[in-house]
Amino acid sequence: MAAKRDVKKVVLAYSGGLDTSIILKWLQNEYGAEVVTFTADLGQGEELEPARRKAESLGIKEIYIEDLREEFCRDFVFPMFRANAQYEGLYLLGTSIARPLISKRLVEIAHETGADAIAHGATGKGNDQVRFELSAYALDPDIKVIAPWREWDFKSRTDLIDFAEKNQILVTKDKRGEAPFSVDANLLHSSSEGKVLENPAEEPPHYVFQRTVSPEEAPDKATVIEIGFEKGDPVSLDGKSLRPHELLAALNDLGRDNGIGRLDLVENRFVGMKSRGIYETPGGTVLLQAHRAIESITLDRGMAHLKDELMPRYSELIYNGFWFAPERLMLQAAIDKSQEHVEGTVRLKLYKGNVIVIGRESAKSLYSDQLVTFEDDHGAYDQKDAAGFIRLNALRLRTLAKRDGK
Amino acid sequence: MAAKRDVKKVVLAYSGGLDTSIILKWLQNEYGAEVVTFTADLGQGEELEPARRKAESLGIKEIYIEDLREEFCRDFVFPMFRANAQYEGLYLLGTSIARPLISKRLVEIAHETGADAIAHGATGKGNDQVRFELSAYALDPDIKVIAPWREWDFKSRTDLIDFAEKNQILVTKDKRGEAPFSVDANLLHSSSEGKVLENPAEEPPHYVFQRTVSPEEAPDKATVIEIGFEKGDPVSLDGKSLRPHELLAALNDLGRDNGIGRLDLVENRFVGMKSRGIYETPGGTVLLQAHRAIESITLDRGMAHLKDELMPRYSELIYNGFWFAPERLMLQAAIDKSQEHVEGTVRLKLYKGNVIVIGRESAKSLYSDQLVTFEDDHGAYDQKDAAGFIRLNALRLRTLAKRDGK
Amino acid sequence: MAAKRDVKKVVLAYSGGLDTSIILKWLQNEYGAEVVTFTADLGQGEELEPARRKAESLGIKEIYIEDLREEFCRDFVFPMFRANAQYEGLYLLGTSIARPLISKRLVEIAHETGADAIAHGATGKGNDQVRFELSAYALDPDIKVIAPWREWDFKSRTDLIDFAEKNQILVTKDKRGEAPFSVDANLLHSSSEGKVLENPAEEPPHYVFQRTVSPEEAPDKATVIEIGFEKGDPVSLDGKSLRPHELLAALNDLGRDNGIGRLDLVENRFVGMKSRGIYETPGGTVLLQAHRAIESITLDRGMAHLKDELMPRYSELIYNGFWFAPERLMLQAAIDKSQEHVEGTVRLKLYKGNVIVIGRESAKSLYSDQLVTFEDDHGAYDQKDAAGFIRLNALRLRTLAKRDGK
Amino acid sequence: MAAKRDVKKVVLAYSGGLDTSIILKWLQNEYGAEVVTFTADLGQGEELEPARRKAESLGIKEIYIEDLREEFCRDFVFPMFRANAQYEGLYLLGTSIARPLISKRLVEIAHETGADAIAHGATGKGNDQVRFELSAYALDPDIKVIAPWREWDFKSRTDLIDFAEKNQILVTKDKRGEAPFSVDANLLHSSSEGKVLENPAEEPPHYVFQRTVSPEEAPDKATVIEIGFEKGDPVSLDGKSLRPHELLAALNDLGRDNGIGRLDLVENRFVGMKSRGIYETPGGTVLLQAHRAIESITLDRGMAHLKDELMPRYSELIYNGFWFAPERLMLQAAIDKSQEHVEGTVRLKLYKGNVIVIGRESAKSLYSDQLVTFEDDHGAYDQKDAAGFIRLNALRLRTLAKRDGK
Repeated sequence: MAAKRDVKKVVLAYSGGLDTSIILKWLQNEYGAEVVTFTADLGQGEELEPARRKAESLGIKEIYIEDLREEFCRDFVFPMFRANAQYEGLYLLGTSIARPLISKRLVEIAHETGADAIAHGATGKGNDQVRFELSAYALDPDIKVIAPWREWDFKSRTDLIDFAEKNQILVTKDKRGEAPFSVDANLLHSSSEGKVLENPAEEPPHYVFQRTVSPEEAPDKATVIEIGFEKGDPVSLDGKSLRPHELLAALNDLGRDNGIGRLDLVENRFVGMKSRGIYETPGGTVLLQAHRAIESITLDRGMAHLKDELMPRYSELIYNGFWFAPERLMLQAAIDKSQEHVEGTVRLKLYKGNVIVIGRESAKSLYSDQLVTFEDDHGAYDQKDAAGFIRLNALRLRTLAKRDGK
Repeated sequence: MAAKRDVKKVVLAYSGGLDTSIILKWLQNEYGAEVVTFTADLGQGEELEPARRKAESLGIKEIYIEDLREEFCRDFVFPMFRANAQYEGLYLLGTSIARPLISKRLVEIAHETGADAIAHGATGKGNDQVRFELSAYALDPDIKVIAPWREWDFKSRTDLIDFAEKNQILVTKDKRGEAPFSVDANLLHSSSEGKVLENPAEEPPHYVFQRTVSPEEAPDKATVIEIGFEKGDPVSLDGKSLRPHELLAALNDLGRDNGIGRLDLVENRFVGMKSRGIYETPGGTVLLQAHRAIESITLDRGMAHLKDELMPRYSELIYNGFWFAPERLMLQAAIDKSQEHVEGTVRLKLYKGNVIVIGRESAKSLYSDQLVTFEDDHGAYDQKDAAGFIRLNALRLRTLAKRDGK
Repeated sequence: MAAKRDVKKVVLAYSGGLDTSIILKWLQNEYGAEVVTFTADLGQGEELEPARRKAESLGIKEIYIEDLREEFCRDFVFPMFRANAQYEGLYLLGTSIARPLISKRLVEIAHETGADAIAHGATGKGNDQVRFELSAYALDPDIKVIAPWREWDFKSRTDLIDFAEKNQILVTKDKRGEAPFSVDANLLHSSSEGKVLENPAEEPPHYVFQRTVSPEEAPDKATVIEIGFEKGDPVSLDGKSLRPHELLAALNDLGRDNGIGRLDLVENRFVGMKSRGIYETPGGTVLLQAHRAIESITLDRGMAHLKDELMPRYSELIYNGFWFAPERLMLQAAIDKSQEHVEGTVRLKLYKGNVIVIGRESAKSLYSDQLVTFEDDHGAYDQKDAAGFIRLNALRLRTLAKRDGK
Repeated sequence: MAAKRDVKKVVLAYSGGLDTSIILKWLQNEYGAEVVTFTADLGQGEELEPARRKAESLGIKEIYIEDLREEFCRDFVFPMFRANAQYEGLYLLGTSIARPLISKRLVEIAHETGADAIAHGATGKGNDQVRFELSAYALDPDIKVIAPWREWDFKSRTDLIDFAEKNQILVTKDKRGEAPFSVDANLLHSSSEGKVLENPAEEPPHYVFQRTVSPEEAPDKATVIEIGFEKGDPVSLDGKSLRPHELLAALNDLGRDNGIGRLDLVENRFVGMKSRGIYETPGGTVLLQAHRAIESITLDRGMAHLKDELMPRYSELIYNGFWFAPERLMLQAAIDKSQEHVEGTVRLKLYKGNVIVIGRESAKSLYSDQLVTFEDDHGAYDQKDAAGFIRLNALRLRTLAKRDGK
């Protein structure tokens, strides 16, 4: 925890909502520090101007409001999808991948504004505090980080509301009680957790899902789309070139309408406990299948299998907040090396929660129907080679069987 | 290839179909060897008695016909599912896991009958030849293996038919031409490949799917089921204890009816080329999700992540035919160690191709709502611990950032 | 940190030296707790009776003094050597492997004596605190752990000496100043670090080495020994069966006399910084080479390579204090599975720091001179098989080369 | 095997010795092909001009003789040493790393001279055939490869000698019998295997070692050297900048004189059997220790541990002949990424077989005596952070212990 007297100016990750407004005021009161607010559009689907007005009303002079959607997709989401990253086999890391970018801008703004600290609104039980802070320290070893949820003495929602009211922060009626669950959203996904979701034996209530229709509600007719790839990244949809965030937004719309991308998961947090999260990643779920499909015809087996073996580690690093750690960069170098020829198009059918690959084509395809055909292959492959291949692969097994008396 | 004069008696993996009947006759003719037939019920859904009659009609005296469904599920399929095995991220290894069991019985029958060789009907381009032969050699280092497809001089379907007719093998009309694709089936899955499926840019024709209805054809109402687990294996369905093969069969029915488990994949064969396969694994697809779900609350993070890292290698070993290799046994020992407390029940909703986890419960759950709750946790977790946790995890990153002048 | 009022009785890992005597007194004063002392013989080469007298003189009523050398070797050191464990490629983990055993006994004694806490003398900067505490928590989730070095307010050696003198703890002259470096020793190794060793650019002074002669001082004539193995563990020396700790002690003598086992290493601590350590592991260094040698003829390639890939992770777990973590048990299950046939004898020449393998023999050898010979092998291996083996291994590379226009 | 009528011109890896001269003649006779010879100086320590004269005397018109020592070190040996590669924990891959370069030149010369095939003198039992051929196919998918040892009918040394004499190839007296063992040498190492070395229970005879003195014969006084590194590669010796092959040659001299780099190993060949090799890698053995030492102060823990985990796979790829495979390139990208700041100097003492690190310094050091010191660190590290760090690392272990009733 930063010594309070050492903090003169702090950049706060500010949403404009009640909680970060309370943090803002608390920083002013407790640290006596000047506060700079930073509000980013990562595609969470909220207007940002209210955050500006709210910050102004709280006396903030330096207000940063930025559209980071393209950078988010291009430099964070897409590199991660090159790895087919899934944490614990299933989770597409929607929250994890957004935190490093926010930290990066917090630190940069601290440098621009001469601030000596940054602050975030993540609690002391979750992964996000770790992600924010590891990223910040990796980018500025001397930055101070303030995590009010770990520091203050508020014990309950009532305490927070009291503080807000004492400090002239407007508390709308619906914020007075606690939310039935907590939400994080960005262009890649929405996550919901806590409260009504805390019993993993119970199905989540319908109102938790805010980003996708259910498979049942989705149209009875499939939608067919075609995604184009270059160097492992999606670059076009149905033949139309799109910028990264436009493409992901379009996939989100398609996924949402077709009931795609819901996940109900009990996962292992870096801080040591299990938690239950509901994730909606409509576009990302489509993208993962499409990427695996274009890799399936353009990626050599040696590369593909090595990628699969490295993926769990890579995903764990991102989940745990080590995006800016050097070992993530090492893995990224290997992964990016593999994507040089991952290009072509994939056709998919989206239908009531299903993402069905129905075709892949590439000028860089390694698939050879001549090699694989049951018909005459005109000498492309000599079946007699297989005998020697098997005999030598078997040699050590036979030696072992002899030794073990089989 | 075994020297022909050295083979006196050979055990043939015999389906009763045209191709293996031709092989049978060819072995008699070319090797002058006595043939023992072995026909196994692995749940492929075909009657076996016709195979007996066909073998008898071809003069076979030693005919083995066996129901291996329970052994197949208990000792092969379920151990593999403990690992959440998916080859190249997607394939549930339905063909790969059946071959070692067939080889094991072929070798055992060779020992029982005093045969010096075994024979199989796999071609020289595929993975199955490797799986059959590596398994056989691992179990008997001196066994001879005959792979007629790699040895004989037949160049075309016509040559084969000619040979059959010359040798009084009945060729029904529908077998006269070549099948539009090739099928393998067992209790775990059906696979289809070749011919009409050889262009990965084209959607497979509807008639290829023989094991599942399409998501579109599946009922408009979801089916809810509950699977019980012990030591990582499924043991009950909707509260009713079932033997392994009964349980998998029941899951197959449920999956089939709900359009679950289709996969259209371009994969990398061990022999070096890419091939395209259509897989239907209805019950296995349900089982995988259920197993991951019960693990999610009963498996420690350290174990879970290690399993995820080992899984691609484990799957590759099975795919490549190394089921009986000692390194597979090493991995199995590690995996089985992890499953000791993987028990409890998982509720799932099956709906038009979707397998949706809607609840998991276990007496061995590691999930603690007290630890994770946003509410007062009565001291179970001290949020201030997180500060130190993060600071020490960040230490090397800060040292690095200082060195690199960030 | 344990709340002081909650601790009634604490088991202290007690060496009898000045530092742990100060801790003992401090626990009595600060916690008002009854102290139980535990002093273990792990082969550190110190008499234990003085510790008993010292404890008695400090008013301790429950004094545990135990010879754990055999358990240490059998259940900790040898299982670790089955893995050929080396942290960061070089370090034989001599300190790391001792901590879990000490914690295990501390927790067991706490249970026997009704104590609610344990205490250790490791500082807040090192790995040992982590190893002690993770082990303790893994064995008793409710145990309280007191780490005085992290808690008290002493700022300097002078403060400690003052406290000792005020509390009637005898301070001998040589303990008045600070030691020029810090030492840890057990049957496996001695480590030295700190102070005069803190500059990694400087060669350690000669007096740091206390456990081995230098290569220069070692005899001019080599010593030849033979170690026998069963199931991966050493069981005999020069044909004589020895119990685990006797065998390691004998190897230590041989290593010490021949200048074997010194290591000057800069390593990465789990708590985040680099540190420099001087290790002397005479017997262990011999044992590692011998174990690799017996494996080289008895272990299948698949197992051997998998072990090599798992080893860094396994070593990291032990170094970081996760001996009792379930993922270490998973890895151990895999490793132990591999050792079933690792038996036979290895002959070694020890000479001035060198451990030179000069022969290995085993009834379970997989080495076949018939297979490998340049001479006529009577058909054991058909060189023509290699052509097919290479062609199929090359197939994907050729496909790739074609695609990439080579 | 290439069809004989299809080969018009073949590039032969030619040493000028008896065996490759026989191959040359055999290619002329059997294939009726024009032969181009390629003889490379890889630092094997033999004069090349005799090879030219011999080739001329056998009627060869296109003779390539090239000094590849610098390329060998710069583009093959040094990249491999960045990974600290050791096959099966011990072998420095001296033969394995040379084969890809020879194949690369063979293929390039085939293109320059319009040849349609290459030929090598490796036998059908070893790894080298695989390395030569996989490399060739990866660089030219259509190249034909002739491996005479797998093709011809010679059964014994006598047959070869007869063929030589019939074909006017000079057979000196000492070549008439078989060599007592077989040797391969290049700038990195010499290897010896076969015949007198085929019993792994027996110490190799002294005369096998041709590249190093024994530790016993080495000087009684240590030699101290200093190696400078940039980006992970050695660039200077005792302050003097050297080109890659000069530096390795100088290290070889130092290693040879001090009895460094001998290895007696039973290893697992890719073709499936175990073999015994005697390796002498004097300079490489020094270089490995030096490289690990400079990494120890300049490489972050995350990178270092990831490298250690990837190393066995990387080494296996090189050993098995997959230098030009894309997964090796992926790993190399990751490894090279880690080496950007691996620079500085390492001091070493060479003494009778020992390589002892006695100092490392770097402007890019990550070692901080301020962090690690037992003395007052002026707040660089807060020991209280360790409590939280441990508590959260322990959380899952405590949860597990509670569940399991400990």
